[in-house]
Amino acid sequence: MLKFTVQKSELEEKISIASSAIGPRTVDPILQCLLFKPVGGVLRIQATDLQTSVIANVKIGEYEGNDSFAVDADLIDDIVKNLPEDEVLFEYSNGKLNIRSGKSKFSLATVSEVERFPSIEYDDSGISFSIDTSILEEMFDRVSFCASNESAMKALNGVYFEAHGGFLRLVASDGYRLALAEQKLAIDGEFDFILALKSVREIEKLLSSTTEPEIKITFDHSTVSFNAGDITTVVRVVEETFPDYKRVLPKAFKTRVILNSDDFAEALKRVMVIAKRGNEKVQLKITDDVMELSSQSSEYGEAVESIPITKDGEDLVVNFNPKFLNEAIKHIDEKEIEFNFVDNLSPLQINPRNVEGYLYIVLPVRA
Amino acid sequence: MLKFTVQKSELEEKISIASSAIGPRTVDPILQCLLFKPVGGVLRIQATDLQTSVIANVKIGEYEGNDSFAVDADLIDDIVKNLPEDEVLFEYSNGKLNIRSGKSKFSLATVSEVERFPSIEYDDSGISFSIDTSILEEMFDRVSFCASNESAMKALNGVYFEAHGGFLRLVASDGYRLALAEQKLAIDGEFDFILALKSVREIEKLLSSTTEPEIKITFDHSTVSFNAGDITTVVRVVEETFPDYKRVLPKAFKTRVILNSDDFAEALKRVMVIAKRGNEKVQLKITDDVMELSSQSSEYGEAVESIPITKDGEDLVVNFNPKFLNEAIKHIDEKEIEFNFVDNLSPLQINPRNVEGYLYIVLPVRA
Repeated sequence: MLKFTVQKSELEEKISIASSAIGPRTVDPILQCLLFKPVGGVLRIQATDLQTSVIANVKIGEYEGNDSFAVDADLIDDIVKNLPEDEVLFEYSNGKLNIRSGKSKFSLATVSEVERFPSIEYDDSGISFSIDTSILEEMFDRVSFCASNESAMKALNGVYFEAHGGFLRLVASDGYRLALAEQKLAIDGEFDFILALKSVREIEKLLSSTTEPEIKITFDHSTVSFNAGDITTVVRVVEETFPDYKRVLPKAFKTRVILNSDDFAEALKRVMVIAKRGNEKVQLKITDDVMELSSQSSEYGEAVESIPITKDGEDLVVNFNPKFLNEAIKHIDEKEIEFNFVDNLSPLQINPRNVEGYLYIVLPVRA
Repeated sequence: MLKFTVQKSELEEKISIASSAIGPRTVDPILQCLLFKPVGGVLRIQATDLQTSVIANVKIGEYEGNDSFAVDADLIDDIVKNLPEDEVLFEYSNGKLNIRSGKSKFSLATVSEVERFPSIEYDDSGISFSIDTSILEEMFDRVSFCASNESAMKALNGVYFEAHGGFLRLVASDGYRLALAEQKLAIDGEFDFILALKSVREIEKLLSSTTEPEIKITFDHSTVSFNAGDITTVVRVVEETFPDYKRVLPKAFKTRVILNSDDFAEALKRVMVIAKRGNEKVQLKITDDVMELSSQSSEYGEAVESIPITKDGEDLVVNFNPKFLNEAIKHIDEKEIEFNFVDNLSPLQINPRNVEGYLYIVLPVRA
């Protein structure tokens, strides 16, 4: 038996956050459920897809009984968000869950064998550090779009975390481009791990929904936990080795271009109208103070644009997949950006002009 | 040859409206195109899927040449909406279209054999009448959701127009429910026709995008045109006979219930949480001053709600598909609505309490 009252608004929020851990439909219905469990005066709601787990604590008043129950997450989410009053009464007994609020009454079946709900391993004794929520959110935003959804190399289907020399560095790459963001932090120890893209999406949801100013990250070799107040997301790391990304960072630039990111984004958008109907290629022609962007489609025609630039070094003609340039520009907030070229076959480095700690690498394509 | 300048904002709007007539990809690429044609000092843009056609007139200044050209609608839409400046120069010559705006240059292939573009038949001499844009929009909104997307009876895949005794009546039904809206108008003549649902969607787009206060409707037996200022939508009517809907309008009610539409909609939303996971059925139990709504799912459980009502006549227990009730309620603006029952096997009539000219009929389902 378990009986408690709870505020609809808080329950709704915590159910929504916990539900995000649930994966696509599986054969085992217990994995489509939320586990409700009283623990030390609060109600704990848990969900897991065996890779990512969320634990959300909900404030409840006095409660009677100590049973746990597991109920279909979609169903309980749908019910709670539609309840008429803020005060909600839950009564669980012998597999039956009654929910009352105002004149609404629900009598629900729960999933039997609640003890089969996977236990969430979560060790507090690992290496621990804190980071501003907004900084971690920005770092994820700057790199996670480069992770691959498809690569056969599992290490590339995620974001690499590296703590080294007092810096936290996040890196993601799909083999054609790479993004890197770093931040100085007080981290006691050195370590690295890979988070799968699905886990990254979970953490991003946690970051955007929390009002906590700091996230506490704890790493204990096979799992990492991200704690923000009432919510803890526990993630298994990917058991792979990340490629040696430092080898692809270009050096010895021969052409440096400074440009306005809005000018470039606008011109690129227009040449992409043709490029996406053609060979998915845009040509950048760099001369003294002009960059000409052009694209062609044998079926539809061609587009030509030009924007003002400041150039140091050699003239250059080089081709890129415009989608990769566009995504890079969208993830840099600064107006002044730098394009650093070696030649028309080597990776281009894009970075904000006067901001440290973020860069983007993209391979050219052949003409 | 044809050469003109045009304002981006107006061109963008007219391209968007004309493009909506274009159907899904077909073997003939000319049907994916917009036809641009100078006619008496304006630029006419035309599109058709052979069933529905749109003619949009665009203001241009002085123009040179008198050629027409046809160009892929998606492409030109994509280009125009991204142009940098409001002033745009078009130059068409020998199958090649150049577009310039600011520093942007596009050189496009056009579709050859422009004379193959289907001519849009459109006779001004039929029966003609005008109706307030907002009234026609409301009438469509009230009935078109009841038209069937699937019925094997083609007559039900659209909206029936009937002009009779100075009234315009719109009716739509999928065989399980029916909606009817009528309006007194100065119409000289009697007629009826069926508009296919896709044509109705076109007219709805015209109504929501125009700023003209009145729509002129002209019917000439095989086509109907809807004119709103610069835009004319020409539609072929469906060559079918609409069923005799007057036979299903219930008479001799035994139970009349007056209720608040918000109360009902809220309670229904909650019982639907269970109904949609169960037998898609909601039971209404009507006693003196209470309507109890309930639903069941063998897998998930049950939900019960009650709302206050004012009842005239006999008690009743009757089952409905809740989706049909919900859609009806959403299309009535009034707070006070009437449910008029004959018995638990006969159609229910729903109407706003104090407003004439709109009613909704739905068949019950068996318990």
